[in-house]
Amino acid sequence: MTTTADLCYLTLDELAARIRAKDVSPVDATEAVLDRIEQLNPKLNAFITVMADQARADARAAADEIAAGTYRGPLHGVAIGVKDLCATKGVRTTAGTKILADWVPDEDSALVEQLRAAGAVIVGKTHLHECALGTTAINPHYGAAHNPWDTARITGGSSSGSGIAAATGMCYAAIGSDTGGSIRIPSALCGVTGIKPTYGRVSLRGTVPLSWSLDHLGPMARSAKDCALVLAAIAGYDPADEGSANEHVDDYAGGIDHAIDGLRVGLLTSALAEATPEVAAKVREAVEVLRSLGAHVSEIDTSLQDYWAAASTVLLPEAAAYHKENFEQRPADFGDDVLLRIQWGMDVKAPDYVNSFRAMREMRRTCDEVLLKDVDLLALPATIIPAVTIDSVTKDDPTLGLTRMTAPFNATGQPALSVPCGFTSEKLPVGLQLVGRWWDEANVLRAAHAYEQARGPWPQPPV
Amino acid sequence: MTTTADLCYLTLDELAARIRAKDVSPVDATEAVLDRIEQLNPKLNAFITVMADQARADARAAADEIAAGTYRGPLHGVAIGVKDLCATKGVRTTAGTKILADWVPDEDSALVEQLRAAGAVIVGKTHLHECALGTTAINPHYGAAHNPWDTARITGGSSSGSGIAAATGMCYAAIGSDTGGSIRIPSALCGVTGIKPTYGRVSLRGTVPLSWSLDHLGPMARSAKDCALVLAAIAGYDPADEGSANEHVDDYAGGIDHAIDGLRVGLLTSALAEATPEVAAKVREAVEVLRSLGAHVSEIDTSLQDYWAAASTVLLPEAAAYHKENFEQRPADFGDDVLLRIQWGMDVKAPDYVNSFRAMREMRRTCDEVLLKDVDLLALPATIIPAVTIDSVTKDDPTLGLTRMTAPFNATGQPALSVPCGFTSEKLPVGLQLVGRWWDEANVLRAAHAYEQARGPWPQPPV
Repeated sequence: MTTTADLCYLTLDELAARIRAKDVSPVDATEAVLDRIEQLNPKLNAFITVMADQARADARAAADEIAAGTYRGPLHGVAIGVKDLCATKGVRTTAGTKILADWVPDEDSALVEQLRAAGAVIVGKTHLHECALGTTAINPHYGAAHNPWDTARITGGSSSGSGIAAATGMCYAAIGSDTGGSIRIPSALCGVTGIKPTYGRVSLRGTVPLSWSLDHLGPMARSAKDCALVLAAIAGYDPADEGSANEHVDDYAGGIDHAIDGLRVGLLTSALAEATPEVAAKVREAVEVLRSLGAHVSEIDTSLQDYWAAASTVLLPEAAAYHKENFEQRPADFGDDVLLRIQWGMDVKAPDYVNSFRAMREMRRTCDEVLLKDVDLLALPATIIPAVTIDSVTKDDPTLGLTRMTAPFNATGQPALSVPCGFTSEKLPVGLQLVGRWWDEANVLRAAHAYEQARGPWPQPPV
Repeated sequence: MTTTADLCYLTLDELAARIRAKDVSPVDATEAVLDRIEQLNPKLNAFITVMADQARADARAAADEIAAGTYRGPLHGVAIGVKDLCATKGVRTTAGTKILADWVPDEDSALVEQLRAAGAVIVGKTHLHECALGTTAINPHYGAAHNPWDTARITGGSSSGSGIAAATGMCYAAIGSDTGGSIRIPSALCGVTGIKPTYGRVSLRGTVPLSWSLDHLGPMARSAKDCALVLAAIAGYDPADEGSANEHVDDYAGGIDHAIDGLRVGLLTSALAEATPEVAAKVREAVEVLRSLGAHVSEIDTSLQDYWAAASTVLLPEAAAYHKENFEQRPADFGDDVLLRIQWGMDVKAPDYVNSFRAMREMRRTCDEVLLKDVDLLALPATIIPAVTIDSVTKDDPTLGLTRMTAPFNATGQPALSVPCGFTSEKLPVGLQLVGRWWDEANVLRAAHAYEQARGPWPQPPV
């Protein structure tokens, strides 16, 4: 017999198969998730808003529709968490800021529209770093997010709640956003798989922006295949989003089982050199697993520094441009670290932004040939350190270097994923980052899936 | 018998017909133009570099090719002037700045490649305001440009030399660039027809930039039809230019004779209110001519102020971004007015640029529906004043408001043309500006051509 705890911890893929087979009802699965949220959310702070009543109604409607013979696909009746910067019609959307504490949108974001069209049950709006402008997820308005592997530690961010929720069975997958690493960092630190797709792959319409040129939405889940299933549902062209691209969307899950024999993987040694020895060792081990599966592994020592710098010089002024009015009129409503970062963005001179933006655009044009010159994928740590304690975070070091290995791929726009690849001696998860060519999420997901199969099941966090 | 003076003053269309009929040789036409340059350039300062030897060789080659039976089209063997910011292989390209005084490019710009492919004879590199960053064309390094209608007056700029050369028979057409009005302003003040095409219509590869988001290249000539012939040769997609668009290029000259019966023209009364009474009266008279030709004329009072402001806040920081290194390392090499404008650009805060850039992009998306809601073309003055005296230009008023009516359409990206529409009481030309929908240069040129036919021949300047 499947217990509630087992049920909420199924992979999305498994749950979808059982819903389709009418072996599990969306109603029961959603109740299992809501139980889990009720049990764990007070301790971990994964959700700013739980949508229990609406989720129950949506699960019931999905159950009825499936019973009547209409099955929409693998997200039908499946409980999903959505980062609280994607607008949800009739449900407050805070973006983690006091300023939007009472904002109840009139319309769904494109992302939420797509999830609903796929039949997904949205269980709640997940916690984030204030305005998504930071990686600690210590939010002065909505509290700190707590790492399920050690609740005294940070989750990483900004998609903190989505990381927690996916890691702990509070949903079957969650949506994050990633402007400098905000999907991949909490994925690494919370031990889930999360993918930042190619820039322009998922519509940003109705999502509170951080930096228009660098923002991405993507899934976080307990497997690469689950990410693939969600990505296929949310990807696609949206003419109402200025950055959206009219590119073919692959059946990411359909091809995910293909062998990776012959896949060329470049291990980025310049990144290993910046990581802690434990993190570097786990990433090296993971790449050895890929080699054992038939991948051709080579070493690459290209520096990511210029990419990181371009991302930073573009990100902060764009964030400041969006928040300018509130920054000037109600600065006390921002947390200290976010206020400081907006100030940094305000202080950037326009010609420096213009030159960084142009450099970034040139990087996007050439990145596949420069960074992936003789390989199909780049392998490197998602973060150079594991989760630190909440107490250790000070204003003096607000980013903790957490974006060092992630922000470069917001500059380049390439698809980049983090998959759990082991633990440090303190039992903290480490993330292997895989980076692919523009529009080639399929290869990134395929390699991550192959790795996961070889790695074996990932344990549940001790909460 | 055609005299040299007559020959150099043929329209491009007329010359092309006679070259094709082997009634005039490209060699004789080019000699006529070179004579004219020799006679007038010392007085007017139209060319920074005259390419006499190369032009003679190119004319000879064109004559031989045509004699051998290969006729490339209406530019074959025709003498054209090119603004001295389009790179010419082996011929110095100064951009009007001391800093590039000795730059001899290794490659032609896309524009020059296209002219050469069409068989054109490039007779020289035309004068411009330093770095194209100004409208007076009083250049501290290469001298002031002199208006052929009154040599004590400015030509307008920055495409000063192209305006003079086209007006005085020193070429059959000239290329200008237009970032805030630099084709349309000298066209208006020198009494020629010039068109700034839609943003992205003509490749900017190899052209020294002023502001990437606002730069346009286009023709200036003695008739709208001549502009149409040149535009057809230089328009087209270039993947190497980031702003270039893959859009169909019409046969602009082929359809230019179609009646304008029923064309809806909106007279922009808000612009007339800013113009001097004489300028406003001439523009009103010109619009009455369009009405007499069957156009439906209505009055529109939309303000262009927001468009102008967006163009300015985008232009100056982009110019500063391009010139930053020289601005910091050798400021004394810039003229005072250009140095001041670069400083203004340096002082713009990045978030303000970002917001203006985003506003500009939104303007481009909506401008056809907002500005041309119920009309096909907008009619307004190209400049609100005629040419002022060189002596009257002071550093305190460096732009003289000359871009008030032109820069808005650099922000919107719409095609915009200036056609001579009469003289002030001081015998100074006035320009009627016609603005069309994105990619609809055809209608703009057609209306200008119809107007020119009704207006009758434009006189030669008294030089």
